[in-house]
Amino acid sequence: MKVFKIAALPKGFKANGIACGLKKSGKLDLALFYSEIPAKGACKFTTNKIQAAPLKISKKHLGLSRQFQAIIVNSGNANCFTGPAGLRDADETVKAVSRALGLKKESVLINSTGVIGKRLKVAKIKKVIPGLVAGLSKGGINKAKKAIMTTDLFAKEITVKANMGNRVVTISGVAKGAGMIAPNMATMLAFIFTDANISGGALKKALDSCVDNSFNCITVDGCMSTNDSVMALANGAAGNRLIDKGNDFNAFTKALGFVCLGLAKMIVRDGEGASKFIKIKVRGAKNFKEARIAALSIANSNLFKTAMFGENPNFGRIAAAVGASGIDIREEDFGTKVSPLDKKDINVEVFLNRGKAGATVYTSDLTPEYIKINAQYN
Amino acid sequence: MKVFKIAALPKGFKANGIACGLKKSGKLDLALFYSEIPAKGACKFTTNKIQAAPLKISKKHLGLSRQFQAIIVNSGNANCFTGPAGLRDADETVKAVSRALGLKKESVLINSTGVIGKRLKVAKIKKVIPGLVAGLSKGGINKAKKAIMTTDLFAKEITVKANMGNRVVTISGVAKGAGMIAPNMATMLAFIFTDANISGGALKKALDSCVDNSFNCITVDGCMSTNDSVMALANGAAGNRLIDKGNDFNAFTKALGFVCLGLAKMIVRDGEGASKFIKIKVRGAKNFKEARIAALSIANSNLFKTAMFGENPNFGRIAAAVGASGIDIREEDFGTKVSPLDKKDINVEVFLNRGKAGATVYTSDLTPEYIKINAQYN
Repeated sequence: MKVFKIAALPKGFKANGIACGLKKSGKLDLALFYSEIPAKGACKFTTNKIQAAPLKISKKHLGLSRQFQAIIVNSGNANCFTGPAGLRDADETVKAVSRALGLKKESVLINSTGVIGKRLKVAKIKKVIPGLVAGLSKGGINKAKKAIMTTDLFAKEITVKANMGNRVVTISGVAKGAGMIAPNMATMLAFIFTDANISGGALKKALDSCVDNSFNCITVDGCMSTNDSVMALANGAAGNRLIDKGNDFNAFTKALGFVCLGLAKMIVRDGEGASKFIKIKVRGAKNFKEARIAALSIANSNLFKTAMFGENPNFGRIAAAVGASGIDIREEDFGTKVSPLDKKDINVEVFLNRGKAGATVYTSDLTPEYIKINAQYN
Repeated sequence: MKVFKIAALPKGFKANGIACGLKKSGKLDLALFYSEIPAKGACKFTTNKIQAAPLKISKKHLGLSRQFQAIIVNSGNANCFTGPAGLRDADETVKAVSRALGLKKESVLINSTGVIGKRLKVAKIKKVIPGLVAGLSKGGINKAKKAIMTTDLFAKEITVKANMGNRVVTISGVAKGAGMIAPNMATMLAFIFTDANISGGALKKALDSCVDNSFNCITVDGCMSTNDSVMALANGAAGNRLIDKGNDFNAFTKALGFVCLGLAKMIVRDGEGASKFIKIKVRGAKNFKEARIAALSIANSNLFKTAMFGENPNFGRIAAAVGASGIDIREEDFGTKVSPLDKKDINVEVFLNRGKAGATVYTSDLTPEYIKINAQYN
């Protein structure tokens, strides 16, 4: 498996990014990802009960179609909490994209990120779609990866190449983080593209498993967004024998897992106001779920996070956080090991002595800068 | 019902506070509360799975005895995460108190607050117990209320007098807050004394209900302590007819509820680094539990709390927090109403339109001062 720290689109994929005026700064704010041939699609969405309009439209299309060719994403506006008008706006955007690409509406997915509760200016989007489509190219990913950013400090991108099903398969991903530098922009979005020939069921299964171990194992401030999504397209252009189960499936899942975890860690590194990158490994749990609950309980504890910022060895806070998670731990079985706190990267190990399962979670510290970032705005 | 903003101990109760050297500052750090006659006792403890040694000892005594006459409380050390030695330390403290007062060990309850994970210096405590007992008095509550403080900025105290069971009954309470100004001191303790003649079952039932609506409805940073406790003693010295159910029980619960909510609100006002006092009222829930989950989800959202600090009307964060709580809300039913953000006291109302139940939760904002307070220490 080869890993590249850039997003190099797999065979058959193109992308583009453009500024349509949703961001007042004039920065890129509209991204289009395109597969020249129909692709299998799998998505994971936020479990927040308030979901943005584009997620509802994408879910509908995932129910109606088995083949997808485009994902349209705007930043600068989350199109969330916008009622029936927001649904119409998302639908109009999708229609304009499908028309320009000569596709069925259902083969287009959509996402948005930005301010909650404000109408999306669809006219601005529609106006630029012909140009956005005309400019699709392999290298356009470098514009697209920027157009999905809100206030991220750097673009998050990764590419993995691995042998599976008798061919080299490429998986490439871009993401935007929970860098809530301007308020209400709390969205984590990831888009993953592969030329693997894989069954829809296997793609979904692999994505479920990889997201559980990556994007669901990171937290910046424990706040769940209304737009969080991971969207994956697999167009089969690598020409490998169909991946469905067995060794090929395992190889694909391993490579996809690397892409997901890589992007997830970049999101934590770019967490708002973060001065530390903290890895929390819980060992000796009864099962993965329990281990992750314990690790997330530490990672979301403001007391723990401020202690890490202050390089303050208050390890009683680790035990208190795990105790508060509801897991039936015993004081006498509980152990912790923490690496030097004066480094940027901190490793926390927790031993529960209840079983053999473990989980690793990544988080940042809680800093005055986080508060400044999230308090200032109007 | 008459309310007094001081702790005026009911008939038959005395107290005292002393400095025994657990606090390096030389401030009061050991409190004794005493009833001249045997009292009914009811306690509510933290649900954290890691519990401090004094809580374990108190729980044991609550199982062994139905009558209590003393509560000994030290600050400066939580006696938590201290293993079997910590249990022996708490037991020795209780023994010394029971000996000095001529009581059975089981009629003494104990609590501690302060640093987690360090042995309690029992010798220092034992040395001063004779003097602590000799100095018990009505007015000693003014020393006791200070001796339970860690880094609270002010003492929390309240007294209510109300008619019930053909007599005037007094309920008086003191508390220390989650003013985690020095780290690891995350404990909320409340001690409530009444001269009411009430059955043990009714006292427990009333306390359960009142704690649910007061101490369980406040949050400063969502971090649950290992020592959180509410302890209530009722000695019957008011000579009223036994309170067990009906109107008398309702009157008692109302008065006790006032004491609990009064203390709980003071704890929030003294929350670390707090610049705002925020009341969150959720209406239209299916039941109280659901309403409280929604309200606490808002109150514990760092994004909401920083917005309140910044006087930043990002009300989308309120919807996002409720959506993340798992309650099955619908966007079209959801409403919010927020009072002017430039005031110290902020009222947030949330409408779910799912049912007729409601809950009110109190919290503070998240400020750079909170981080400073909790990061600095060694």
